[in-house]
Amino acid sequence: MKPQLNFTGNDPRSRRSYAIIGTGAIGGFYGACLQKAGFEVHFLFNRDYQYVSQHGLVIESPDGDFTLPSVRAYRNANQMPQCDVVIVALKTTNNYLLPRILPQVLKENGVVLVLQNGWGMEAEIAQIVGSDRLMGGICFTFNYKVGAGHIRHLDYGLITLADYAPGYAAAGVTTRLCQIAADFSSANVMIQLHEDLFLARWQKLICNIPFNGLSVILNSAIEELIGNADVLTSIEQLMVEIVAAALAHGRQIPALYIQKRLKQTATMKHYQTSMKVDFDQGRSLEVEAIFGNPLRQAWQAGVQMPQVSMLYRQLKFFDAQNRLAETVSLS
Amino acid sequence: MKPQLNFTGNDPRSRRSYAIIGTGAIGGFYGACLQKAGFEVHFLFNRDYQYVSQHGLVIESPDGDFTLPSVRAYRNANQMPQCDVVIVALKTTNNYLLPRILPQVLKENGVVLVLQNGWGMEAEIAQIVGSDRLMGGICFTFNYKVGAGHIRHLDYGLITLADYAPGYAAAGVTTRLCQIAADFSSANVMIQLHEDLFLARWQKLICNIPFNGLSVILNSAIEELIGNADVLTSIEQLMVEIVAAALAHGRQIPALYIQKRLKQTATMKHYQTSMKVDFDQGRSLEVEAIFGNPLRQAWQAGVQMPQVSMLYRQLKFFDAQNRLAETVSLS
Repeated sequence: MKPQLNFTGNDPRSRRSYAIIGTGAIGGFYGACLQKAGFEVHFLFNRDYQYVSQHGLVIESPDGDFTLPSVRAYRNANQMPQCDVVIVALKTTNNYLLPRILPQVLKENGVVLVLQNGWGMEAEIAQIVGSDRLMGGICFTFNYKVGAGHIRHLDYGLITLADYAPGYAAAGVTTRLCQIAADFSSANVMIQLHEDLFLARWQKLICNIPFNGLSVILNSAIEELIGNADVLTSIEQLMVEIVAAALAHGRQIPALYIQKRLKQTATMKHYQTSMKVDFDQGRSLEVEAIFGNPLRQAWQAGVQMPQVSMLYRQLKFFDAQNRLAETVSLS
Repeated sequence: MKPQLNFTGNDPRSRRSYAIIGTGAIGGFYGACLQKAGFEVHFLFNRDYQYVSQHGLVIESPDGDFTLPSVRAYRNANQMPQCDVVIVALKTTNNYLLPRILPQVLKENGVVLVLQNGWGMEAEIAQIVGSDRLMGGICFTFNYKVGAGHIRHLDYGLITLADYAPGYAAAGVTTRLCQIAADFSSANVMIQLHEDLFLARWQKLICNIPFNGLSVILNSAIEELIGNADVLTSIEQLMVEIVAAALAHGRQIPALYIQKRLKQTATMKHYQTSMKVDFDQGRSLEVEAIFGNPLRQAWQAGVQMPQVSMLYRQLKFFDAQNRLAETVSLS
């Protein structure tokens, strides 16, 4: 039996409290939506703590701009209260911080919601908080941080929510999943419930792997990638490898899903991928979460994913060069 | 029966004449060696014609620098005499010029020696001159053009010579192969005879595909590539794909050969690959000869070479971008 969250009713005095671990473009946006809807939200900041403590958060969105003049901001997890739902929205490259943070901020019967791209984060975090207190969320949204405390939501916004069970067995639609979905819905965030976190995450990898990877290696925006017949062929071949690896784990990603994603991406062509933005800004790339972990999962089932593998190693090389450059410029 | 060349003796009055089609770092170097050894050599130039007509050729080499104050230089194949041996040393991206050039310069019983990197050039040129008048040479040499009429030979210099038969059937060691080998040997050029042009070319692809491709995509010198564990893994995986494709055509590239090449390449680490130099100078990349043609050959045998395929498409994208940039800067 999964532990249930402590509050289920709509009584405002007993609404779930939320912690946002990593208040960037994703965590800041969804946390702000929840606070605006009346939830108690505690935001963990890094560099922007001072600014946001004084000025609050500004959200620009096609669904309506809004300002939160006052937010519960922290720069140290030790000072945060324990919350019912802890949203992990760090870059996965910072997940090494979680063993110190999560035990501080997670209520005994609370749940960690992992709002990150990639694969395998829940299994890693299960080692910190136990495998009964985890769920995953996959965000289809284009957000970026304009500056300290200032987030721009450009388009989309859907979160696909799925509960976690050990080994990524399909957990089905649980009560707590519905409860958290209801919270987001009341905050005007579109939610799709998913019975199988494995399938939900690998469906997202169908887009993340080709577009994030090739945008960095080919130094290009989505528009340039899908506008080139050769790159489009590579994108499709990468997708075929991901489909095969998912299938080897008993998960069928329909061909129609791929067609739909490609068609949808064609409308996103003016955007840069998140990995390209990270690379251009000299930040660490989420290579292990988006490439390394899925590869190792595929290899476990005897599927090689050779083109994903090449892209993975190219990215690791670029990431190492990028960080080398950073070290040099710091010294 | 293969037509034999007209002269076999060592009588200086009856020595074979040579035409160099494409007097760059490769054609210019070997042509100069032949002329220095007393052969009649006719050089076809493009931009450097005027300069070389007046100043001749300067060769710098660890085997001894030398100058040829006067060379038979042409800028139009129509003005060249027909020669016994026509050496094709253009970039393969310029092979579209050959149908106009070769019929002008090749003696009726002469032979075309293709000194280019890649795969499939002989089969293409056979459509111009017939399949009985072709052989291939694979150069293991580091040369570059310092300036007009000035070539620097840095290291190595060996040519692997193999005769051509239709469909790249192994032609064995023919008399004409030995004759041409003897000419080069007398010009102090190391020659290795090979019975099977298919195998000889695919052995060279073992190096050309990974190093040329990754040096461009990862914007790096050989040193940086082999110094990175991930790139080294990709190099090895690319090599494995090439070995498998050759094997599907009945050609066995020994594992020992790969080890030897990797070890040798480790000593070449200070060099840039030719494709990287082409890319950096905004020239067309030899993508079809080195990647596209081998891929199509592999596909014919049902071998996919997925990582070679990805590298091919990445290079085509970069090549197209590079030429687009060239167009823009010209307009």
